[in-house]
Amino acid sequence: MLSEFELIARYFDRPQAPGGVVKLGVGDDCALLAPPPSQTLAVSTDMLVEGRHFFAGADPEKLGHKALAVNLSDLAAMGAKPMAFTLALALPSANEAWLASFARGLFALADAEGIRLIGGDTTRGPLNLCITVMGSVPEDQALRRDGAKHGDDLWVSGTLGDARLALEALQGKIALPDDLLALAEERLHRPTPRCALGMALRGIAHAAIDVSDGLLGDLGHLLARSQLGAEIHAASLPAGPTLARQPTNKQTDYMLNGGDDYELCFTAPPGKRDAVLSAAASANTSVTRIGSLKPGAGVQILDAAGKSLPFTSQSFDHFGKDI
Amino acid sequence: MLSEFELIARYFDRPQAPGGVVKLGVGDDCALLAPPPSQTLAVSTDMLVEGRHFFAGADPEKLGHKALAVNLSDLAAMGAKPMAFTLALALPSANEAWLASFARGLFALADAEGIRLIGGDTTRGPLNLCITVMGSVPEDQALRRDGAKHGDDLWVSGTLGDARLALEALQGKIALPDDLLALAEERLHRPTPRCALGMALRGIAHAAIDVSDGLLGDLGHLLARSQLGAEIHAASLPAGPTLARQPTNKQTDYMLNGGDDYELCFTAPPGKRDAVLSAAASANTSVTRIGSLKPGAGVQILDAAGKSLPFTSQSFDHFGKDI
Repeated sequence: MLSEFELIARYFDRPQAPGGVVKLGVGDDCALLAPPPSQTLAVSTDMLVEGRHFFAGADPEKLGHKALAVNLSDLAAMGAKPMAFTLALALPSANEAWLASFARGLFALADAEGIRLIGGDTTRGPLNLCITVMGSVPEDQALRRDGAKHGDDLWVSGTLGDARLALEALQGKIALPDDLLALAEERLHRPTPRCALGMALRGIAHAAIDVSDGLLGDLGHLLARSQLGAEIHAASLPAGPTLARQPTNKQTDYMLNGGDDYELCFTAPPGKRDAVLSAAASANTSVTRIGSLKPGAGVQILDAAGKSLPFTSQSFDHFGKDI
Repeated sequence: MLSEFELIARYFDRPQAPGGVVKLGVGDDCALLAPPPSQTLAVSTDMLVEGRHFFAGADPEKLGHKALAVNLSDLAAMGAKPMAFTLALALPSANEAWLASFARGLFALADAEGIRLIGGDTTRGPLNLCITVMGSVPEDQALRRDGAKHGDDLWVSGTLGDARLALEALQGKIALPDDLLALAEERLHRPTPRCALGMALRGIAHAAIDVSDGLLGDLGHLLARSQLGAEIHAASLPAGPTLARQPTNKQTDYMLNGGDDYELCFTAPPGKRDAVLSAAASANTSVTRIGSLKPGAGVQILDAAGKSLPFTSQSFDHFGKDI
């Protein structure tokens, strides 16, 4: 039977190399962090609730990956370099197999992205994971939502829609062959935060946001902050490999309103197209130019003939639906 | 019916004065923070779960105060100046009266302590509050747990035990007259984080910890980190005004193992007694010298004749009891 302190010591207090930005890690009242001089600290928090953000009984290793990935995605969208994170965990019971597996998924991604766990809290309660990430970025190079300019190209990284397809298959709403479901599920359960791309876009992109609730909804936040509108060429949208086998209309719908993609949507001036492609290549991440920014507000979706298509945002809202 | 974004805008996105350490607040993928040059960032996270850390149906205004207070107490125990915090909130429903009241309690304390809300997350789920606080402190003046020295005096701020007394009265385990219960409840529901004292003790105290789970348990963590033992003079312990009316043995028990006090326990060399008292006066906070540090391990509780009393730590452990 593990105590709270044994639990932390066994699964979350890993020996840390001296030096670096972390001056004091897990085990005191606070951690101590020294960000690089002349950089600002980028901070973001996400909370994941069982039955809401993930299925009850979800694989804890995948959950460890995803809980950190969705937070890293916020750093990526700011162009920030990952530095440190805290983890608060409410657990129904101190299940050692669950904890070992969760920690494995969490630290595999943390190590890959060079981010260190510096503190947190564990308590008993309905399963809930709250991570706060900290990164560093020069203040004038941060990829804010409000920096987009009229005439900018609109870009998106990777592909869209496979996570939503997997979700609907797992919910029994659609049928997918096993091999395709496995492929799509990787996107749902193991999203890849685009940190390298975000950092490579410093000084190139004008604005960025990560696509977590659906492209149209998230782009809407960026446009509202930048006081601009946009048009998107439906035929340019990059469908995930599983989604690409679905009917065209469904593809477009899921790419625009899918959710859980954790890709970056960003804007950059047309004169920087080569720079964007070089940044993407250096980050080993594909990018696709999907439209451009316009005066006004809202997003128009255009077909190949330039005709407006009737898609609207159905972005996920945690309190909008049935309260 | 409030959407998630309206909820954040209405209750948590307050206009912020330009300048200061917060370069970008609520509303982007990350907040941007610029800590003062040549200081380290102190970071701590606490998660509060309904039915575990507070009663179901608790007064939301008091809860807003307490959720932030327990986090500020961690900054205080490090000697850090409060700077910014994030708030993640899982709510069963978007109840506007609840939110307005919670925000009132939260921001009253935030404003009093000069700490700014810079971001967070809201979602639906069993009531859960996760706050991450950030403060600043010169690295070499941080009040770590591992800095205590053999021969140091042991001090505690304020008074102990009233919060536990209130808890037991509310649970129906003991009876208290209404006026005393009201007094004790203030300590349970509206703890005062000792931030001013923590900062005043920079360069004076060798080590500090905040008393959240009970003096003996928390002091035990400090001693383990500093590889020392301690003796405490039972008659020196400062009882809260309500507890002071209880039998002596109960007083000692509750002061040693009460929990929820949110006072600072700290060590300082005997040569610094005047400096400690001046720091306490400047912070408008009482302090009491309760013992001293010894070689070895563990804590001895001594009566007025120097005889050892049989008190042991019964510190609260979230996973130790019935899992």
